[in-house]
Amino acid sequence: MTLRPIALAIAAVACSSAFAQQSTVTVFGILDAGVQRLENGSQARWLQSIDGLRTSRLGFRGTEDLGGGLSASFHLEGALSPDDGNAAGMNWRRRSTVSLASSTLGELRLGRDYTPTFWNYSVFSPFGTNGVGSSGNLIYGFGGKSSTAPTIVRSDNSVGYFLPKGLGGVYGQAMVALGEGAPTGKFHGVRLGFASGPVDVAVAASDTVNNAAGDKFNNFNLGGSYDFGVVKLMGIYSVSMQTTAKQTTTLLGFTMPIGAGELRASWIHADKANSPDDATQLAVGYVYWLSKRTALYTSAAQIKNKAAATFVIPGGAPLSAGQSSTGVEMGVSHSF
Amino acid sequence: MTLRPIALAIAAVACSSAFAQQSTVTVFGILDAGVQRLENGSQARWLQSIDGLRTSRLGFRGTEDLGGGLSASFHLEGALSPDDGNAAGMNWRRRSTVSLASSTLGELRLGRDYTPTFWNYSVFSPFGTNGVGSSGNLIYGFGGKSSTAPTIVRSDNSVGYFLPKGLGGVYGQAMVALGEGAPTGKFHGVRLGFASGPVDVAVAASDTVNNAAGDKFNNFNLGGSYDFGVVKLMGIYSVSMQTTAKQTTTLLGFTMPIGAGELRASWIHADKANSPDDATQLAVGYVYWLSKRTALYTSAAQIKNKAAATFVIPGGAPLSAGQSSTGVEMGVSHSF
Amino acid sequence: MTLRPIALAIAAVACSSAFAQQSTVTVFGILDAGVQRLENGSQARWLQSIDGLRTSRLGFRGTEDLGGGLSASFHLEGALSPDDGNAAGMNWRRRSTVSLASSTLGELRLGRDYTPTFWNYSVFSPFGTNGVGSSGNLIYGFGGKSSTAPTIVRSDNSVGYFLPKGLGGVYGQAMVALGEGAPTGKFHGVRLGFASGPVDVAVAASDTVNNAAGDKFNNFNLGGSYDFGVVKLMGIYSVSMQTTAKQTTTLLGFTMPIGAGELRASWIHADKANSPDDATQLAVGYVYWLSKRTALYTSAAQIKNKAAATFVIPGGAPLSAGQSSTGVEMGVSHSF
Repeated sequence: MTLRPIALAIAAVACSSAFAQQSTVTVFGILDAGVQRLENGSQARWLQSIDGLRTSRLGFRGTEDLGGGLSASFHLEGALSPDDGNAAGMNWRRRSTVSLASSTLGELRLGRDYTPTFWNYSVFSPFGTNGVGSSGNLIYGFGGKSSTAPTIVRSDNSVGYFLPKGLGGVYGQAMVALGEGAPTGKFHGVRLGFASGPVDVAVAASDTVNNAAGDKFNNFNLGGSYDFGVVKLMGIYSVSMQTTAKQTTTLLGFTMPIGAGELRASWIHADKANSPDDATQLAVGYVYWLSKRTALYTSAAQIKNKAAATFVIPGGAPLSAGQSSTGVEMGVSHSF
Repeated sequence: MTLRPIALAIAAVACSSAFAQQSTVTVFGILDAGVQRLENGSQARWLQSIDGLRTSRLGFRGTEDLGGGLSASFHLEGALSPDDGNAAGMNWRRRSTVSLASSTLGELRLGRDYTPTFWNYSVFSPFGTNGVGSSGNLIYGFGGKSSTAPTIVRSDNSVGYFLPKGLGGVYGQAMVALGEGAPTGKFHGVRLGFASGPVDVAVAASDTVNNAAGDKFNNFNLGGSYDFGVVKLMGIYSVSMQTTAKQTTTLLGFTMPIGAGELRASWIHADKANSPDDATQLAVGYVYWLSKRTALYTSAAQIKNKAAATFVIPGGAPLSAGQSSTGVEMGVSHSF
Repeated sequence: MTLRPIALAIAAVACSSAFAQQSTVTVFGILDAGVQRLENGSQARWLQSIDGLRTSRLGFRGTEDLGGGLSASFHLEGALSPDDGNAAGMNWRRRSTVSLASSTLGELRLGRDYTPTFWNYSVFSPFGTNGVGSSGNLIYGFGGKSSTAPTIVRSDNSVGYFLPKGLGGVYGQAMVALGEGAPTGKFHGVRLGFASGPVDVAVAASDTVNNAAGDKFNNFNLGGSYDFGVVKLMGIYSVSMQTTAKQTTTLLGFTMPIGAGELRASWIHADKANSPDDATQLAVGYVYWLSKRTALYTSAAQIKNKAAATFVIPGGAPLSAGQSSTGVEMGVSHSF
């Protein structure tokens, strides 16, 4: 992405072989900002939006070759909010991990990291979990409303294991997070997938101790994509449960290369069990890549809430039960 | 400033043309610390001072050449407080922006940034807005007292435009910041200047919605400098208004190169309309540059408050109405 | 440690002498995480531990050669908590300093820094001040319980002086921290040592104004090590006092190289004057270095509290007076 100290070191070495053992830190990041119009019910609001295409971030990472196929690595990454300069303070809560990896045995990873059940929501959604068309608008919700269910994205105190590469397209990971004596947060999760040629499919499941009574938040999801070249189809099926509450969410979408850009569209439906509080989100957008690092984008999305559902595109005016939430945005996304 | 990854990349390329497309992040910053004695009324206090010459900061920035005169860039910069190691937490509130620029059409910039009305207060003040002689001690104030008026330095949620270079010395910028549904913060501002040879002059104006009733804080300022070689004269004229309240502030000053250093002096007068609560600040100082990056400096300043005015050099003991505020400092400023 | 921009710059220069004046920023850090079992009284708890071998950190530092033996430098360093991604926010409170140094006269350092009385607790402890066997578990305590006495590790607002190298093995530093009008925090401290061949000894003393009445927290310590090659013996003697309260702490320990690793053990005894609330800590551990940057480690320690003492290995369940505190951990420590 950035600095490419490895490449620089190689260049240096090309000049002088005395500099062969440079260690490396890569400074990387993304700034993504734009302008957004959100309309909840009849109340419209203009905003400076961020993260419409990719989440703004700053990070540091590096890998050390320990020889014999072994390596140690670290990854620090925190969210940026260019609209207010991180008024709430900088942290590294997107990811803070240290790893030991073997090319044949896989990777052991410690720290704060994404849960195995997160990835399908991002990888198999045309809009990922970003912008007005984010799959998270519906999938992160529960009980007929938008909210971030615990560990649906990341977990503190985790010990993770990742399968090595070269298993004929099979990939997978497992994670355990310790409760540390707290009433909530104890987590188990696993993800298994297969990617080969145009096909990519994965299934994931997790449970999290979610209250003092020990009730568990259960999350199961299945995602897949097939790349026909002219169009890439995607789908997600997700179930979230805690005791008697249950939400089933289904996504269908596609991306279609057009010139130096890409058309994106998705349909998502959230079904609250034994309740009419359901919602449907439709989203369409276009991304134009000025370079590998920089893109212009525009997206539009609408959530239609049924009955008393309050799913919402975040950031706008307060939404009353059953109202629609509509958003349009355009922005620039630049990585380094 | 630092790392100079571009230069390194160029050097690398000079060795091997295979490394022509290195992307670049520049890590840059300043640490500026010293010792200060502040006396408000009869109460003196010794302090470890920071930012006496330049504001301590850490930042990351980079530019990507998109071809055809187009470029994308980012700039992240946050304040450092070396006296307590940023006890309040690190952020990027000095500047967090992403830009698209054309060499002929100018730059579009999104994020948290300086307002157009800030720059004259820094550029045309011998002490900038730093240290005991800061122009901000009086100019940031309003209503007969020191305080930071909203958006007098920076604004969240801004969309800015900058004129391209090569307009025969004319430079300028405009900024709009969205209110985002909040009762305050909506901003419009513009700055236009001309620099050629020894002359530099600029004028700026802005308004900010500043309370729930929609009252606007209006700021207008004019600044200029003329470099005679042996001495560089500077001046600022500033007017701040909200409904019936008004403050007019005038600065006259100079910098004079002496050896590897520079003598600095300024006189500032703040006049509160229809009130005797005025104040005058006198400041004198010397900067000695050990290198392009590192300087030793010493400054002294005194604010004389009339009637019930309470303008103050920040950091000292509480100041009663009409008391004088005096400060002396020496320090080291190091950039990277 | 990392990036080695100096070396890169040198390499670049070897290619093209036009790039001789590169300035340098080194990005450096450590991520250290593992798993820990703590047992206080009869309550056991599993945790994701951090900092078992070395404190997790991120930093930026650099030195500018000013010519004639003079240099300017800066050092910014903040703690990382990979278990939760710095949920409390990032800062630079491990160290934030700017320095001017002369090769013959020594170094003047301004900012937040370690106090002179800290170093012996780290350098002459086999476990440093990290992990279940940290010397700090007992030494940082006072009044029969674990707690962090003020300025026992670092101080804000400090002005420090360090002796130059090349004094025949003599090293030393002095520090003053300004009270800045606050009732507490005014600090004076000094450390003097001698290191030559297998011998290293140092003595340090400090006082800190510690309450509004002006009572001082006094700290005196003496540490030493002798490296026999097959084993390195270490010892610390520490006295902490405030008005009539006093704690004397003694450490004896050793490190012993075994293969690519090192066996570590220490015994520490804290004696509260005129009280039976004493405690003893025993610790043993092994570190295996996979490379210069990366290690695996395991440690075990137990604190036995007498009478009503409540010294504790931090992080576990609440400890009642007189209970034992036991900890076992294993982890990975990776620097960059």
